[in-house]
Amino acid sequence: MSKNLTSREEDYSKWYNELVVKADLAENSAVRGCMVIKPYGYAIWEKMQAELDRMFKETGHQNAYFPLFVPKSLFEAEEKNAEGFAKECAVVTHYRLQNDPDNPGKLRVDPEAKLEEELVVRPTSEAIIWNTYKGWIQSYRDLPLLINQWANVVRWEMRTRLFLRTAEFLWQEGHTAHATKDEALKEAQLMNNVYATFAQNFMAIPVIKGTKTESERFAGADETYCIEALMQDGKALQAGTSHFLGQNFAKAFDVKFTSNEGKQEHVWATSWGVSTRLMGALIMTHSDDKGLVLPPNLAPNQVVIVPIYKSQEQLEELQPTVDEIIKELRSIGITVKFDDRDTMRPGAKFAQHELQGVPLRIAIGARDLANGTVELARRDTLSKETIPVNGLSQRIKSLLEQIQSDLFNKAEVYRNEHVTAVDDFESFKKTLEEKGGFISAHWDGTAETEDKIKELTKATIRCIPEDQKQESGVCVLSGNPSQGRVLFAKAY
Amino acid sequence: MSKNLTSREEDYSKWYNELVVKADLAENSAVRGCMVIKPYGYAIWEKMQAELDRMFKETGHQNAYFPLFVPKSLFEAEEKNAEGFAKECAVVTHYRLQNDPDNPGKLRVDPEAKLEEELVVRPTSEAIIWNTYKGWIQSYRDLPLLINQWANVVRWEMRTRLFLRTAEFLWQEGHTAHATKDEALKEAQLMNNVYATFAQNFMAIPVIKGTKTESERFAGADETYCIEALMQDGKALQAGTSHFLGQNFAKAFDVKFTSNEGKQEHVWATSWGVSTRLMGALIMTHSDDKGLVLPPNLAPNQVVIVPIYKSQEQLEELQPTVDEIIKELRSIGITVKFDDRDTMRPGAKFAQHELQGVPLRIAIGARDLANGTVELARRDTLSKETIPVNGLSQRIKSLLEQIQSDLFNKAEVYRNEHVTAVDDFESFKKTLEEKGGFISAHWDGTAETEDKIKELTKATIRCIPEDQKQESGVCVLSGNPSQGRVLFAKAY
Repeated sequence: MSKNLTSREEDYSKWYNELVVKADLAENSAVRGCMVIKPYGYAIWEKMQAELDRMFKETGHQNAYFPLFVPKSLFEAEEKNAEGFAKECAVVTHYRLQNDPDNPGKLRVDPEAKLEEELVVRPTSEAIIWNTYKGWIQSYRDLPLLINQWANVVRWEMRTRLFLRTAEFLWQEGHTAHATKDEALKEAQLMNNVYATFAQNFMAIPVIKGTKTESERFAGADETYCIEALMQDGKALQAGTSHFLGQNFAKAFDVKFTSNEGKQEHVWATSWGVSTRLMGALIMTHSDDKGLVLPPNLAPNQVVIVPIYKSQEQLEELQPTVDEIIKELRSIGITVKFDDRDTMRPGAKFAQHELQGVPLRIAIGARDLANGTVELARRDTLSKETIPVNGLSQRIKSLLEQIQSDLFNKAEVYRNEHVTAVDDFESFKKTLEEKGGFISAHWDGTAETEDKIKELTKATIRCIPEDQKQESGVCVLSGNPSQGRVLFAKAY
Repeated sequence: MSKNLTSREEDYSKWYNELVVKADLAENSAVRGCMVIKPYGYAIWEKMQAELDRMFKETGHQNAYFPLFVPKSLFEAEEKNAEGFAKECAVVTHYRLQNDPDNPGKLRVDPEAKLEEELVVRPTSEAIIWNTYKGWIQSYRDLPLLINQWANVVRWEMRTRLFLRTAEFLWQEGHTAHATKDEALKEAQLMNNVYATFAQNFMAIPVIKGTKTESERFAGADETYCIEALMQDGKALQAGTSHFLGQNFAKAFDVKFTSNEGKQEHVWATSWGVSTRLMGALIMTHSDDKGLVLPPNLAPNQVVIVPIYKSQEQLEELQPTVDEIIKELRSIGITVKFDDRDTMRPGAKFAQHELQGVPLRIAIGARDLANGTVELARRDTLSKETIPVNGLSQRIKSLLEQIQSDLFNKAEVYRNEHVTAVDDFESFKKTLEEKGGFISAHWDGTAETEDKIKELTKATIRCIPEDQKQESGVCVLSGNPSQGRVLFAKAY
C-alpha cells in the first residue's frame, strides 16, 4: 500500500517525518522552517491547550495578550536574554512595500518606509512583558501577578523539523511576578509539576523532573526546572521548562514594589512554557510502524465506526444500530465518528484510522447485525474482539481508560529500562552508543567537563533529577569529586 | 472619585479611550500601534472566541494553523490583494542581530544576515493559504475544504485606537474552497449569518446585513458581505465581513480540481473574519458614563457578591450564606465572584464593578442576614431591589436573561431611531450632522458619486442592505436614476 511508512528500525528519523505528513498532522510550508499545522494535528493541539488552560486557571492564572514585536531597545535590555536570542531572530525593518520600478508587477521594500527602531519578532516575551509590568506593579498589593499567554513565537533555527524545531511555533508562556524569592521559586516548581502531571495523565508520557545545569539554562534565568521524556530511539526530549528568573528582568526594566513594610524592592519573576513541540513528543513516544498511536485523552476521535456493506440497502439496515451506538457513546462523553464514506473500502479505512491513531475501531456488518455483535479493535495492541452490542458503551469506556494507562505503563517500562547508571567513561560511551537512553553518572559540576562530554559523545546533561539522592562519587570524565549523579542523554 | 470617566456627551472619543484603560481591558504598548490586552479584556475575548469557535465547528469547519510570514513572491501573486495591503505591511528583512561595534551593549541588525526574499508579516492569509491549498486539492472529493484559523495579523495603520484599529490585532479567518460558484456564494452568506447571529445573541448588538459596494470590498474579493452596527455616537462600525473571492486566488495560485465529469476547473473561494475590533463594538454599544456594561452572555463574572461588614467576626457570620449562594449559582451555570478583599471599602468595590460592567451585584450585610435578604443591583439600569435569599438563584437566572434581551432591545430601538430615509442632499448633510446614524438614500451606483459624497460629508456607503426592497428613485447627489436605497454613515 502506498501509505506504508518506513519502519522505525530502518530509519527512525524518516519514519517520524513520513508519519507526521501521512497522518495529516503537519507539513512544511513555503516559508523556510515554518510549518502548516493541518486540521487533524491542530485538533490534537487544541485538546492539549484546553487541558493545560484549565490547569493554569485552576492554579490561579489568567490569560492576556502582549505584542508580537519587541522594539530593539527593549530586546537588548536584559543582557543575557538578548545574547541568547539575538543570533536567531526575525527582524522587521520596514513598514511598506511599493511597486518595483525595475520589475513590473513585482513589489519591493519602500526605502522611505524604514522604521526608526527595528522590531524583533518575539522569540519569547520576557522583555515586552516586563516593560509592561513596570506600569502594573507599584505595591505588594499588586502581587502576585499570575499571567499566561497563548501565542506564536519565532526563532530563526537553521535546521528545522516538523513540530520538534520550527522557525515559528505555537506555545504558551506564563510570566509571573512575586514579592519574595521563595514565592517565585515555589511558583516555578508548581508549574513544572503542572507540566509533569499533564504529560503523565494526558499525554501518557512518563517524565523526569529536574533542574538544568547553568549552561543549559534559559538565557536570563537563575534556575530552570524541566521535564524530560525519552523517545523510542533512545533520545531525550525536553517537554517543558519553568524558569526562576530571580530579579534579572525586574532590574533590567526597573520594576519595583513597595513592600508591606514600606520598602522599595525589586520584584521576583518566573516564566514557563510548553509548545507545539509536545506534538513531537506525543508522536515519538507511542507510535509504531503502522502510524500514530494516540492516548484516548488527546484523541480527536476516540472511536471510529466503519460499516461493512455491499449495497446501499445493507448500509441502511446497519444505520439504526449505528445510531444507537453513537448516541450511547456521546451520552457518556466519548467522541465517535461514523466513517460512512462511499469512496473508500473498509480495508483502506482501517489502514487510515490506524495511520491516524484512533484508539478504538468498531466494525459492523450484516453478520454482526444478525448476531447482535460488533468487532472492536484496539489501535495500540492491534488486538480484536467480537463483543455484544449490549453493554458496548461501558466496555468502550473502560477500554479507553485501560488504553490510556497501558500506554503510560509501556512508555514507563521502556524509559525505566533505559536509565543506566555508569561509573566510567568507557561504559558511558558504550551505553550511549549501544543502548541510548538516559545515563546516570557522576559529574564534577564544571561547565568544562560538561562541554567536553558533549564534544566527545554529543550527550548533554538533560537534568539534575529532583529525586536524586545525595551520593558521593567521582566524575565519570575528570575523576574529580561529585556530590551526586546527573542524567546525560543525546537529545532532540 | 479619581476613577470618574469623561462623560459621553462631553467627549465620546475620550470617554471610550478612558473606559478601555480604566476598566482594565487594554492599554497601549511600547510598540507603536500595538496593544496589550489585559486579563479582564482578554477574558471577554475568550468568551467570544469560545462561542464563535463552537458555531464554526457546528457549521462543519475545522481549525488549522498557517505561517505568520508570507514570502514576498506569494504576497504579490494576487494583484488586487497585494495592492490593497502593500502600503501598510510589516516586512522582515533580516534574521539576526549582532553586537553594535559603535555602541557597546547595544545590538544592531547583522548586515550579513539579510534574507534572500523578504517576508511580509501576514495582514491576512489568503496568499499563504491558497499556496498551501494547491497541494491539498486535486479532485472534487477534496472539496469543500472548510478551514478556520485563530491568529494574529499586522496592518501598519497610521492612526490607531485600542481595539478599533491597531497595528497588530487578533482575529479568526476562515478560508474555504468549493467546487462551484453557487456553493461558495452560499458559504459566504452562511458565515455572514453566523456573525449576525453571534452579534445579536451574544453581544446583544443589532446588526444590518448587506453587501459592500465595489470600492469598499475586500482587496481581491468579488463580493463582500458584512454586518454593520451602530455606536451610541451615531457612527457605524463594520463588525464582521465575509468574502466571496470567486476564482481570483485559485487562478493566482493555480489551484484546480478534477470535477465529477473529469474536467479540470479552478476552485471557488471564500474568506471571512471577525477580530478584537468586536471588543470596541461591544464597549461602544452598551456602556455608559459609569463604565462598561456587559451582556451576561459575555461577562467573565455574571454576578459579584460584596460583603458589608465592620469586623472580621461579621464577615465570618456572612460566610455560610455567601457559600450557599455561590454554590447554588454555580450549580445552574452562573459565574460568580466573591469580592472579599479587605483592602477596599464596599463603595469603592461597587464603583469598580460598575466600571467593569458586572451585570449583577449582590450586597449582603448583617441586617440582610437577619432578614434573610440580599440587595441585588443591576448594572445596566442601576436599579436595586431587596429580595429574599430564598429563590435567589432562580431570580438571578431570569434576571440575567432579562438583561441580555433588554440590552439588545435598547440598542435596537436606538439603531432603528437612527436609520433615516432622505431624498435630497441638503437633508442628507443635515441629518448626518445633527442626528448621525444610518442614512438610507438613493445612489446612482457609480464610484464617482460615492467618492464625491465621502469627500463632501465623510460618510461612506456602509452596505447595500440585504432586505432592501427594489425601489426606483433618483440619486441623492447626482440626480441620476437609482434602483434602490443604500445605507450611508460616518464609520469607525
